[in-house]
Amino acid sequence: MVNIGIVGVGLVGSELLAQLHATSAKCLKIVGLTNSRNMVISDTEYKPLSLTQWKQELEGSNVAADLGVFAKYLADSPEHAVIVDCTASDAVSQLYPAWLKAGVSVVTPNKKGFSGSLDLYKEIVSLAANLGPSTGAKTPMAYHESTVGAGLPVLSTLTDFVKTGDEIEKIEGIFSGTLSYLFNNFSSLSSTGSQSFSENVKVAKELGYTEPDPRDDLNGMDVARKVTICGRLAGLDLDLSTLPVENIVPGPLQAVASADEFMAKLPEFDDHFSKLNEEAKKEGQVLRCVGLVDVKGGNSGVKLLKYPGSHPFASLQGSDNIIKFTTKYFPNGLIIQGAGAGAAVTSYGIFSDLLKIQERVEGF
Amino acid sequence: MVNIGIVGVGLVGSELLAQLHATSAKCLKIVGLTNSRNMVISDTEYKPLSLTQWKQELEGSNVAADLGVFAKYLADSPEHAVIVDCTASDAVSQLYPAWLKAGVSVVTPNKKGFSGSLDLYKEIVSLAANLGPSTGAKTPMAYHESTVGAGLPVLSTLTDFVKTGDEIEKIEGIFSGTLSYLFNNFSSLSSTGSQSFSENVKVAKELGYTEPDPRDDLNGMDVARKVTICGRLAGLDLDLSTLPVENIVPGPLQAVASADEFMAKLPEFDDHFSKLNEEAKKEGQVLRCVGLVDVKGGNSGVKLLKYPGSHPFASLQGSDNIIKFTTKYFPNGLIIQGAGAGAAVTSYGIFSDLLKIQERVEGF
Repeated sequence: MVNIGIVGVGLVGSELLAQLHATSAKCLKIVGLTNSRNMVISDTEYKPLSLTQWKQELEGSNVAADLGVFAKYLADSPEHAVIVDCTASDAVSQLYPAWLKAGVSVVTPNKKGFSGSLDLYKEIVSLAANLGPSTGAKTPMAYHESTVGAGLPVLSTLTDFVKTGDEIEKIEGIFSGTLSYLFNNFSSLSSTGSQSFSENVKVAKELGYTEPDPRDDLNGMDVARKVTICGRLAGLDLDLSTLPVENIVPGPLQAVASADEFMAKLPEFDDHFSKLNEEAKKEGQVLRCVGLVDVKGGNSGVKLLKYPGSHPFASLQGSDNIIKFTTKYFPNGLIIQGAGAGAAVTSYGIFSDLLKIQERVEGF
Repeated sequence: MVNIGIVGVGLVGSELLAQLHATSAKCLKIVGLTNSRNMVISDTEYKPLSLTQWKQELEGSNVAADLGVFAKYLADSPEHAVIVDCTASDAVSQLYPAWLKAGVSVVTPNKKGFSGSLDLYKEIVSLAANLGPSTGAKTPMAYHESTVGAGLPVLSTLTDFVKTGDEIEKIEGIFSGTLSYLFNNFSSLSSTGSQSFSENVKVAKELGYTEPDPRDDLNGMDVARKVTICGRLAGLDLDLSTLPVENIVPGPLQAVASADEFMAKLPEFDDHFSKLNEEAKKEGQVLRCVGLVDVKGGNSGVKLLKYPGSHPFASLQGSDNIIKFTTKYFPNGLIIQGAGAGAAVTSYGIFSDLLKIQERVEGF
């Protein structure tokens, strides 16, 4: 039995509670929930909270959110405890070392702690039994599968490569569902009269596939965070501030004040994108915005690259992620492809991580 | 620390020893080795055997192979023990229940125990802590990732689906490196004047991609075993003897006495295969020999199917395996692709399984 507290109960946190409820996973018990306003913690016997009434209980709670009290409650648990951070908060990720020091494991889809300050990352690694060199039995763990490709088994596969001594040459991937969708539609060898780039962005925005300001997708920073996370697991000291990131937002539009103004002016740059696309097409190639962890070559970064029609990245559809590992054991690549965003697959990744911790704590 | 004995030290077993030696994985210790003639077991202190001199020691050993003595030695280990079965023997797989009952975990790329008799399979599941319902702390485990797609994370992903309550609709895959190679070359929308089917088989045989008698690949039985293994993990009581398997060896050649005679007569059936291929091509499709676990529809089996050019199976290259899971969380599919055969990737899969056991036994 593992006792679990969830910080941030929005789309992903709610879905996780629904998945736990649906499976009645008896080995995982929710004993605490907090959003930015209220919190609910169980009693001194760590009885399970209701997985059907939790929303009412949290909203009706008169206990103000206090992450210090919340973490202390979990640290005092007689059984192993895990905090699931379902926020996207940098401040919350800063608390991981304190939680780990108190013996509480961490599971999270929050990219901040693993792609931010290298010092914070190294402190987390040094404290988590599954990441750094072993520091003794039953020390707490930190799992973050859902930070890259949501529930796709990307980080677990990467971890297996590292632990078995496989030599990773490079990791190349379409890590953003938004950029996947945009370029799969915009740049395809089979499509005849393709939409303009701005029209594609407009449609994607209307479908809810982009951030409210699509520049937050197009600037490559989300991909850069995922590259940083993968690179660090592969042994590189990557740092967001120095990683080369190709921002495909046209220069003059990077500084315009609003998303509306950006969308209004983007058509002025359609020729720029069409020209790139046509050049690629003439070579039998397509454009894809990829993240690259170049372990051997040192050219990690986020890039707009061209791929031939026979490459798996070229035939990608919808908003799928695709990640290709090239290693000593897999010189022709091991590829993982599928939905890399959304509440269901993100929660699924968290759920899988929780089971890994439970198995390692209890052995059965 | 986990104590390990390896049964069968051929290509895969030797490679595993080399990988363990290269990484100096301190938590995994080899204490016993046996082939069909000799065996070497360490002393009562379970000191590690040499990972550099093992071959000479095994060949020079005057202790006759005895799996009873071998298993007893491991069962008596004060630390948790694992037997790695690197044989393809049905008789060895029959011993798994006895080993598990004695508290010894099993890791294997041997398909027999997991695709053979349903009774044997269910007994293994009932005894292994990671497969059946938990029977208490620290019970032994049975991992067999390398039985399907070698080191590709196929069974671990499937297990995560099952444990998190995801609903698996179907698992569809090109599970045979040989059949992958044959049909990727024979049936492609881009190739102009393709080789005859018999010529393809001849080249594959010369390259060592097929069994000595290529009918052992073409009859679909290897794929059927992998379908059975995946299906059983997904909750189906599949049985090799009743699974519909399309044998693509032409009827009149199924009974010819020798591989040579088969190869000599195969060209007489080139028109048959060319016709199938042309029919597919006219529809913009390619032929692929796939294994299907049809959880919802009940049509599991091995089939020669057609796929449109945009399907990931159509653009497969070389002898890669590709497996597509369609589930509630991944309605558009989660795809895993890469080398699914060979000593390096098979050993890598075994190595990963050993680490999973070590982590669950020791927690760190």
